[in-house]
Amino acid sequence: MSFHEELLEKARPIWDTMLGHPFLKETAECRIEDAVFANWLQQDYLFVQGAIPFISVMVSRAPLCVRSGLAPAIGALQEELRLFEEMASKKNVSLDNLRITPTCHAYIQFMLATAHSASFEESFALLYGAEKAYFDSWTWVKGNLKGESPWQPFIEKWSDENFQQWINWIEGVLDNLADQASTSLQEKMIEVFRLAGQYELLFWDMAIKGESWPV
Amino acid sequence: MSFHEELLEKARPIWDTMLGHPFLKETAECRIEDAVFANWLQQDYLFVQGAIPFISVMVSRAPLCVRSGLAPAIGALQEELRLFEEMASKKNVSLDNLRITPTCHAYIQFMLATAHSASFEESFALLYGAEKAYFDSWTWVKGNLKGESPWQPFIEKWSDENFQQWINWIEGVLDNLADQASTSLQEKMIEVFRLAGQYELLFWDMAIKGESWPV
Amino acid sequence: MSFHEELLEKARPIWDTMLGHPFLKETAECRIEDAVFANWLQQDYLFVQGAIPFISVMVSRAPLCVRSGLAPAIGALQEELRLFEEMASKKNVSLDNLRITPTCHAYIQFMLATAHSASFEESFALLYGAEKAYFDSWTWVKGNLKGESPWQPFIEKWSDENFQQWINWIEGVLDNLADQASTSLQEKMIEVFRLAGQYELLFWDMAIKGESWPV
Amino acid sequence: MSFHEELLEKARPIWDTMLGHPFLKETAECRIEDAVFANWLQQDYLFVQGAIPFISVMVSRAPLCVRSGLAPAIGALQEELRLFEEMASKKNVSLDNLRITPTCHAYIQFMLATAHSASFEESFALLYGAEKAYFDSWTWVKGNLKGESPWQPFIEKWSDENFQQWINWIEGVLDNLADQASTSLQEKMIEVFRLAGQYELLFWDMAIKGESWPV
Repeated sequence: MSFHEELLEKARPIWDTMLGHPFLKETAECRIEDAVFANWLQQDYLFVQGAIPFISVMVSRAPLCVRSGLAPAIGALQEELRLFEEMASKKNVSLDNLRITPTCHAYIQFMLATAHSASFEESFALLYGAEKAYFDSWTWVKGNLKGESPWQPFIEKWSDENFQQWINWIEGVLDNLADQASTSLQEKMIEVFRLAGQYELLFWDMAIKGESWPV
Repeated sequence: MSFHEELLEKARPIWDTMLGHPFLKETAECRIEDAVFANWLQQDYLFVQGAIPFISVMVSRAPLCVRSGLAPAIGALQEELRLFEEMASKKNVSLDNLRITPTCHAYIQFMLATAHSASFEESFALLYGAEKAYFDSWTWVKGNLKGESPWQPFIEKWSDENFQQWINWIEGVLDNLADQASTSLQEKMIEVFRLAGQYELLFWDMAIKGESWPV
Repeated sequence: MSFHEELLEKARPIWDTMLGHPFLKETAECRIEDAVFANWLQQDYLFVQGAIPFISVMVSRAPLCVRSGLAPAIGALQEELRLFEEMASKKNVSLDNLRITPTCHAYIQFMLATAHSASFEESFALLYGAEKAYFDSWTWVKGNLKGESPWQPFIEKWSDENFQQWINWIEGVLDNLADQASTSLQEKMIEVFRLAGQYELLFWDMAIKGESWPV
Repeated sequence: MSFHEELLEKARPIWDTMLGHPFLKETAECRIEDAVFANWLQQDYLFVQGAIPFISVMVSRAPLCVRSGLAPAIGALQEELRLFEEMASKKNVSLDNLRITPTCHAYIQFMLATAHSASFEESFALLYGAEKAYFDSWTWVKGNLKGESPWQPFIEKWSDENFQQWINWIEGVLDNLADQASTSLQEKMIEVFRLAGQYELLFWDMAIKGESWPV
C-alpha cells in the first residue's frame, strides 16, 4: 500500500462522514438553501485567499524537483478566486466586508502555521488532505447529482480531469516524501492529514449551521 | 488615551463577557466541577506548550530594546508548565496522551501563524490580548472568591504582583510600538487583539461545555 | 522627492560604482573573457534559483493589493532560469554540480532571512534594490554597447520595456509602503536597500575576480 | 562512528585550517595586535546578537524533548553579550554604532535563513558547527597559550567544563536526529555543517585582514 493510500485508510471514518455530509447531499439533490450555499461560498472565498500564503511558503521551502510542480498552484488559486467572484456576482452574493468565521479562521491559521513551522513533509500532507477532500467531495456531488445545480461550475471545477491530475501529482510527490521519512515523521504526516480532514468537516458544518464569534 | 487603553475600549464587550463567564464564576464560587476544571487544566497545559514557540518566534523578530524584556517569558512559560504538572499530580488529573480540542488547536495555530507571518506589532498585540485576558480573568476570580479554592495556585499565579508587572511592561512596549505604527497597522493590531479575546472566550466555553473533533 | 528616489539618492555612491564596474564595461565593449562571463552566468543561475523562495515568502506576507502584482514574479524567475539554461547550452557552460561562491550564498541568505524575519516593507526595499540594480546595470551595458555581444539575450532581458514596467510597479508600491511607514521603518528600508546594492557590487566583483571558500 | 564524528571527519580539512589560523596562533602567543582583536570582538559581539534570533527560531521549531535543553541558550547568549561589554569597556573598545562587516552579516543571515526555511535537523547541524568551532578554537588557544593573555576571559569562556557539556548535549541530540534522518537529509546536514566551518574561517580571516563593504 502506498503512503497516500495509507493516509486515506487511516482517515476513512473522517472521509465517510465527509462524503455523506448534509451540505454535499443537499447540494447534490439541488435542494440546498441559497443562504446556506452563500455562507459556504463567502467563507470558502476567504479560505482560498488564505490558502495562497500557505502554498507560497511551501513553494519557498520545496525541494527543487517539487517546486516547479507546486508553484503554478498559486496562479490556480488566484483563478479560483475569479470563479468565486463570477459566481457570487451571478447569484447576488456579496463578497465585500466579509466577516471570517472561527472555523475558517482556524483552518487558515493551521495551514499557515504548519507551512512556516512544521516540516515540508507535514505541510505537503496537509495540502493533500485539503485538496483530496475537495476532489472527493465534489466528485461525490457530481456522481449523486439530481438535476441541474445552480452551482454547477463549482461542481465541475473540483471534479474535472485537471483537478484529478493535480491530485495524482500530489500523491506521487507525497509517496516519495514519505519513502524518505522516518517513522516518527510519517506519524506526524498522518496526524496532519487527519486534522485537515477534521477541519474540512468543521467547515461543512459551519456552512450549514452558521457560526459566529462569541461577541 | 494610550493605545493599550484604546484596545481595551474597543474590546469592552468581549471583556465584559469574559469576566462574567460561567467558568470563572463557578471557580470563584468554589462550585466548579472537578471534571470541568480538569478539562481546562489539560487544554491550558497544551496551550502553554504551544505558546512557547509563539514567544520564541517573537523573540527572534523583536527589536533589540524589546528582546531582553521578552526573552525571559520563555523560561516563565516553562515554569508555568511545572505548575500545571504539580497541580495535575496533586489532583489526579492525567497529562499523558492528551487530545487537543479544536479550540485549543486553533488558538495555538493563530498565535504561531501570526508570529511568523504578520508584523511584529500584530504579534505583540496578540500577546497582550492573551496575557491581559489571563490577568483580568484570574484577578476577577480572586476578587470574587468565596472561600478556599482547590485551584488557589492558579488564581494566585495570574493575579500576583509579578504578573501585573509583566502586563505593565507589555502595555508600555505596545504603546511605543503603536506610536510608530501607521493607522492601518494600528487597525490590524486592534483586530488581532480582539481576536485574541474571542479565542479566550471560546477557550472558556470549550472548558465548560466540552468539545471534540467531528470524528 | 518620492521614497524610491530618496533610496537612489542615498545609494548614489554605490550605484556610481556599479555602473562603471569592470564587468559591465568589459561586457559592453564585447571584450569580456568567456570564462569570466561563464562564472557570472553560473552563479547568477544559482542566485535566481535562490530568489524564488525569497519572492515566495514575500507573496505569502504581501497585503492583498500587492499580492496579485507580486505573484507572477515567481513564474517570471522560472522563465529566467530557462534563459540561463538556453544560453549556457549554446555557449557550452555547464550548469551541473555548480559550487556556490561565498558571495552568492550570502546574498541569497540575506534575501531569505529578510523575507522571513524582517518587515514586509524591508523585504520590498530589498527586492527593489536587486531588481533596480539589474535594470540599471544592463540598461547601462545596452547604452554603452560596442558591437554585437554574444550575451545579447541577457542584455535585452533586463533592459526591455517589460522589465521597465516591473520596476515601475515596484517603485509605486514601495512609495505607498513608505508613506505608511514610520521614520524608523523607513531608515531600515534605506539600510536594506543599500545593502542590496553592496551585495550587487560584491557579486560583480566575485564574477570578475573569481572567489572560493577558504577550504 | 557516530554522526557527529562523521561530520567532524568530513570537515577535517576545514578544522585543520581553523586550528592553525593566524588569529588563534597570535592570540595564543600573546602577540596579537589590540586593533585586530578589537576588530574580532566588535564583530563577534554583533554575531552573538544575531545568533539569538537563530536560536529563538530553533526553539520555536524544536521537538519537545529538545526544546527544554535548547531554550536556556538564549539566556546564555545574552550573558555572553555582557562579557563582551565588560571586556570592551576594560580594553577601551567601542561597541557603539558598529558597522557590520560583509562576512559577519553573511554568517548571521545564513543562520537565520536556515532556521526559518531549512529543516530543524539542518539548523541543528549548523548550531553544532558554530559551537564546536568555538569550543575547539578556544581550547586550542588555551592548550597553546604562552603566558598571560589580556583576553583570558574569552579563552576560558569557550573552553570550560560548562561549554564542554553544552557541546556534549548538542552532539547527543544531533546523533539522535541523524538516526531518524534519511540519507539525503543527512547529506544536507553535512553540507550545512561544512558551511558553518567555512564561515568560521572567513570570520577569522575577516578579523585579521580587516574587511569592508565595496562602498
